[in-house]
Amino acid sequence: MIDAIVIGVGPAGISTAINLRKLNHSVLVLGKDKGQLSNLDVIDNLYGHGPIAGEQLITKGIMQSRQLGIEVKNESVLNIEDFTDHFVVTTTHQTYEAKTVVLSTGKPRVQIKLEGYQAFKSKGIHLCTTCDGLFYKNKKVALIGNGAYLEHELETLENYTKDIMIFTNGSPYTHKKYPVIQDKLVAFLGEKRLTHIKTIKDTYQVNGVFLAIGHPMATELSLKLGVLMKDDNIVVDNFMQTNIKGLFAAGDCVGGMLQIPKAIHDGFMAAHGINQYLRGNNHGNNQYTY
Amino acid sequence: MIDAIVIGVGPAGISTAINLRKLNHSVLVLGKDKGQLSNLDVIDNLYGHGPIAGEQLITKGIMQSRQLGIEVKNESVLNIEDFTDHFVVTTTHQTYEAKTVVLSTGKPRVQIKLEGYQAFKSKGIHLCTTCDGLFYKNKKVALIGNGAYLEHELETLENYTKDIMIFTNGSPYTHKKYPVIQDKLVAFLGEKRLTHIKTIKDTYQVNGVFLAIGHPMATELSLKLGVLMKDDNIVVDNFMQTNIKGLFAAGDCVGGMLQIPKAIHDGFMAAHGINQYLRGNNHGNNQYTY
Repeated sequence: MIDAIVIGVGPAGISTAINLRKLNHSVLVLGKDKGQLSNLDVIDNLYGHGPIAGEQLITKGIMQSRQLGIEVKNESVLNIEDFTDHFVVTTTHQTYEAKTVVLSTGKPRVQIKLEGYQAFKSKGIHLCTTCDGLFYKNKKVALIGNGAYLEHELETLENYTKDIMIFTNGSPYTHKKYPVIQDKLVAFLGEKRLTHIKTIKDTYQVNGVFLAIGHPMATELSLKLGVLMKDDNIVVDNFMQTNIKGLFAAGDCVGGMLQIPKAIHDGFMAAHGINQYLRGNNHGNNQYTY
Repeated sequence: MIDAIVIGVGPAGISTAINLRKLNHSVLVLGKDKGQLSNLDVIDNLYGHGPIAGEQLITKGIMQSRQLGIEVKNESVLNIEDFTDHFVVTTTHQTYEAKTVVLSTGKPRVQIKLEGYQAFKSKGIHLCTTCDGLFYKNKKVALIGNGAYLEHELETLENYTKDIMIFTNGSPYTHKKYPVIQDKLVAFLGEKRLTHIKTIKDTYQVNGVFLAIGHPMATELSLKLGVLMKDDNIVVDNFMQTNIKGLFAAGDCVGGMLQIPKAIHDGFMAAHGINQYLRGNNHGNNQYTY
């Protein structure tokens, strides 16, 4: 079993991986999205570096970890399951077992920029089938998304209802069991709660909506696991451990300053937190400060 | 007047300077000692870097800050004076005025490795003439050291006593007013308190000893300013401000993990703390956490 699976290939994730490797732990990095950083043209406030483009820095980080013998796989994580003493991580390609998991997928994103999204979030619009599926037992539910993530969420949703419509918001997609609406979405409608989805062509009555767009980020993966969050940020202790033992988070997804030196430092602290955890010195939340 | 003077050219100091510059503040870096880091043959856990020698990394950091228009001067700081709304920094070359000062001189060092040092530290052996000189009014006092730092301390000591002997512990040095003993030191002697200094040739009765070896580090500079310390570390808030408004510290001298990512992050946080301070949002100790 791998000591740690790191989800995310940005500075926080790679910094965690590198420092874990230096502490002699086995580590696998999984990630598809280069995130916020890749949009930066020039970074010139990183100690020891000349000016470098965000995209280039990410590539350099990935290469660096490979040179240290760390496996970095271009796979999208669909789900994490907590088995108390270990985790099972399911990607688009296979499943992995690890003693610890680090979430470092970057800044929580707005799931979908659409009229009515903010108004009906948690009032008919949900991010996590496992968490909120039961509210919609035998109800009419829309699932927005496509691809592997959608299929994974669909499987969970089927435990609660078979009255499912799939909305792809413009992407081509077909499904053998459920109706697929490929038209672009326009708005979420309702009064106190969501009641309808409006596309460019029509309006559909629904009891609830679940989002499974692109691939899940830390927020969505955390929701499934019952991770304590504040606003959209994952709550961690000083060694970056969440309220779930063995589950750590680092970088923009824990909030604070959304900058590279902080992400790198988070990763460094997470590696040391995991090191302690794996050595049986689980420090407990906030026990250690520095 | 300069916005900030950073004392120390290691990762913490240069990271502070770079981030201050990016926040559009004027900054001067002063430092002579390359510190602990220069002893490291290979550093390979620094995100985005290939393997690099400590000495090389320090040089790279200094060059980087110069490229950003930051002045880095190879001067040893002898004293810092606090004038409430600004600081005066005296080096071996001249004096500078700055609105804020950052101490980042690295890990506190053992002042002198000699029998009896630990036993009589603060019991006859002192690091700061300004702090403890008055205890030795008209008493017989030894000053250990040589060069500019010694001369600076001597000037203060003369306010309290003229019965002064200089011990250079093997270095060549002369003084026009006071006797200079150049013999190697062997031990500090005494019972409850220090009473004698023993050299390879003789034993000298003294009431007290002051150290002024090499050049002052954060510990000694802090003592003069009345900075709150815990063990040998400078106590700082989350934005690296000490108990003295406008005086910040970063890196190994504040304790915690003595590693590069932490030093860089300290510098990053100090820069943001100074930015707030200079904008009049002095946050007060521990008010902000992240």
